[in-house]
Amino acid sequence: MNTDHRQEPRREAPRTVISVDAMGGDNGPSAVVAGLAKAATKNPDIRFILHGRRDELERLVARRRVLEDRIEIRDAAEVVTMDAKPSHVMRHGQGTSMWSAIDSVRNGEAPVCVSCGNTGALMLLSIMRLKKLPGVNRPAIACLWPSRSPQGFNVMLDVGADVRADEHDLLQYALMGASYARNGLGLERPRVGILNVGTEENKGRAELKAAHDLIENAAGTGNFEFVGFVEGGDIPSDHVDVIVTDGFTGNIALKTGEGTARLIGDFMREAFKATPLSRIAALLALTSLNRLKKRIDPRRVNGGVFLGLNGTVVKSHGASDATGVAAAVRLAFELAQSGFTERLAARVASAGGPVHDAPRDVAGGER
Amino acid sequence: MNTDHRQEPRREAPRTVISVDAMGGDNGPSAVVAGLAKAATKNPDIRFILHGRRDELERLVARRRVLEDRIEIRDAAEVVTMDAKPSHVMRHGQGTSMWSAIDSVRNGEAPVCVSCGNTGALMLLSIMRLKKLPGVNRPAIACLWPSRSPQGFNVMLDVGADVRADEHDLLQYALMGASYARNGLGLERPRVGILNVGTEENKGRAELKAAHDLIENAAGTGNFEFVGFVEGGDIPSDHVDVIVTDGFTGNIALKTGEGTARLIGDFMREAFKATPLSRIAALLALTSLNRLKKRIDPRRVNGGVFLGLNGTVVKSHGASDATGVAAAVRLAFELAQSGFTERLAARVASAGGPVHDAPRDVAGGER
Repeated sequence: MNTDHRQEPRREAPRTVISVDAMGGDNGPSAVVAGLAKAATKNPDIRFILHGRRDELERLVARRRVLEDRIEIRDAAEVVTMDAKPSHVMRHGQGTSMWSAIDSVRNGEAPVCVSCGNTGALMLLSIMRLKKLPGVNRPAIACLWPSRSPQGFNVMLDVGADVRADEHDLLQYALMGASYARNGLGLERPRVGILNVGTEENKGRAELKAAHDLIENAAGTGNFEFVGFVEGGDIPSDHVDVIVTDGFTGNIALKTGEGTARLIGDFMREAFKATPLSRIAALLALTSLNRLKKRIDPRRVNGGVFLGLNGTVVKSHGASDATGVAAAVRLAFELAQSGFTERLAARVASAGGPVHDAPRDVAGGER
Repeated sequence: MNTDHRQEPRREAPRTVISVDAMGGDNGPSAVVAGLAKAATKNPDIRFILHGRRDELERLVARRRVLEDRIEIRDAAEVVTMDAKPSHVMRHGQGTSMWSAIDSVRNGEAPVCVSCGNTGALMLLSIMRLKKLPGVNRPAIACLWPSRSPQGFNVMLDVGADVRADEHDLLQYALMGASYARNGLGLERPRVGILNVGTEENKGRAELKAAHDLIENAAGTGNFEFVGFVEGGDIPSDHVDVIVTDGFTGNIALKTGEGTARLIGDFMREAFKATPLSRIAALLALTSLNRLKKRIDPRRVNGGVFLGLNGTVVKSHGASDATGVAAAVRLAFELAQSGFTERLAARVASAGGPVHDAPRDVAGGER
């Protein structure tokens, strides 16, 4: 992040307020509050509006001194469960912590909201309460992927907001993903690729060929580099930063990658338990193995970001523990500090209009 | 494999002849011949028809004593290059080793063909020369995936024969994949799932919901267990054996899994090189690490199998070395010995007709 700290005083205080849904995750509000405490320790500028059952939350927050005077609790009696039908939540969810957390963004009290809850319900409520950005047809969920790139992560979207995407949606994803990479990963001119089954221009489905042309033409205005088609094996590579795909394919790829990493982790543990010698080796290698674990720990890239709305929503894994919640909150904080929501809106709006691009070397220019 | 060896003499000799395309892989015919030598050492019953440039092949084969009197060389002057256009090969490829290798299956000299060459050309030539099985609209490529299942591998198809698949194609894939799992992995009653973005029945695209019903209804006749929708993370799991998907999604998933495994492998090597202590640890853990490497080594699951044709074609990785070629040949040999081509044809043919299923406990029954 190349935030210019001299400009800091000009920013308004609400910029660093994060709205947090305390309920709805698999590990309940205690994991969420523990995560906020972790994040608050590292970022003195962060403040929270915490939504959920007041009694329970007050008790949990009181135990964390680092959170003193930094949290405002909003009472919300109801919880969106993991198996709740999104359409039901949309109609009857007004008393839930999720609804309340999103409304803090809607009301302008916080620029970003974080929730560990039911993804489908969170997306539907976010669309309903925040509304889509002008020019966006399908909002998308972007995820971070551990990679060989210098920044350590690549961005992929959509990973599950919508199972369909035509060429115009894919163009929007390219613009939104590039903007996210600029603001979330500090890349001046991200490299954008379209996920396909081959890198030749004549490969794949019709909408991908159409998207290829649209995105190629938008690269100048959108201030990104278009690298064409990329394959599944390129997702963690160092020759692309933003991978654009429909939500069906993206979701399958994301979960396949996570599943493969878990499988190898399990196999590795078994291998190190196989013999007395290997157990000694594992002890000696502990620091290295922990470094590896940290590098590919899914909790550390925790946070799917909903893009294409009037406000930013960070979806943390349902099973997030304190480390996972803290990672999602840190991501939310960085996006809030960079003014991401406004920048993204400007970017998407300008795509339809005349060519207008901020000079690359002007700090704080349009991103 | 529960092949009944007392029945062996009744089988005809050509059953264990494998037709091999010696050219077209990235490492040339020397890697192929080295792989045949490896496979021949482990399987005394195996014989080969080897297609390619006679001079070169005779020289290479003469150096391997284990191949003496076990290889017939067929001269083919031309080679299908990796960047050749499949449609061009279809029109002008008659003098190539690939064409010749497929024609050995077409002529009944060998039940299975192995090639490391250009996938697109190999698929197009296979369809043209072998023709589709009656009732099959889109042939598929099936791959093996290292998994937590007792057999150590799961089957996924289609991984790239065709970017489209409707519900009827997906049903065919389920039948063909189940047959492959029975004959290639020795599973009596494979568990079949459809790849989707969620496990609930109302999730995903319309053709997947239609396929859900079709495949569920075919489970009895097809002699498999239907486990419904599975997600990307379930591909290497132990609660499904055969994962059915379209060739676009399957190819993305396969390459994403391979890419993730490579990334973790690289990170692991870096972690073990980080400090003197970790280098010592790596030495101590060498056996365990090699066991892990062997378990997830893509060369050992080398061999995409083309299903739905009058004959079986095993596609080995283009970059296969001797170990990779040997793995592909062993797979071809097992499929040849089990009479897979005929069994698969019978299975697909019976799907359209009345319910007729072989008793599960009769060895050698319809699989």
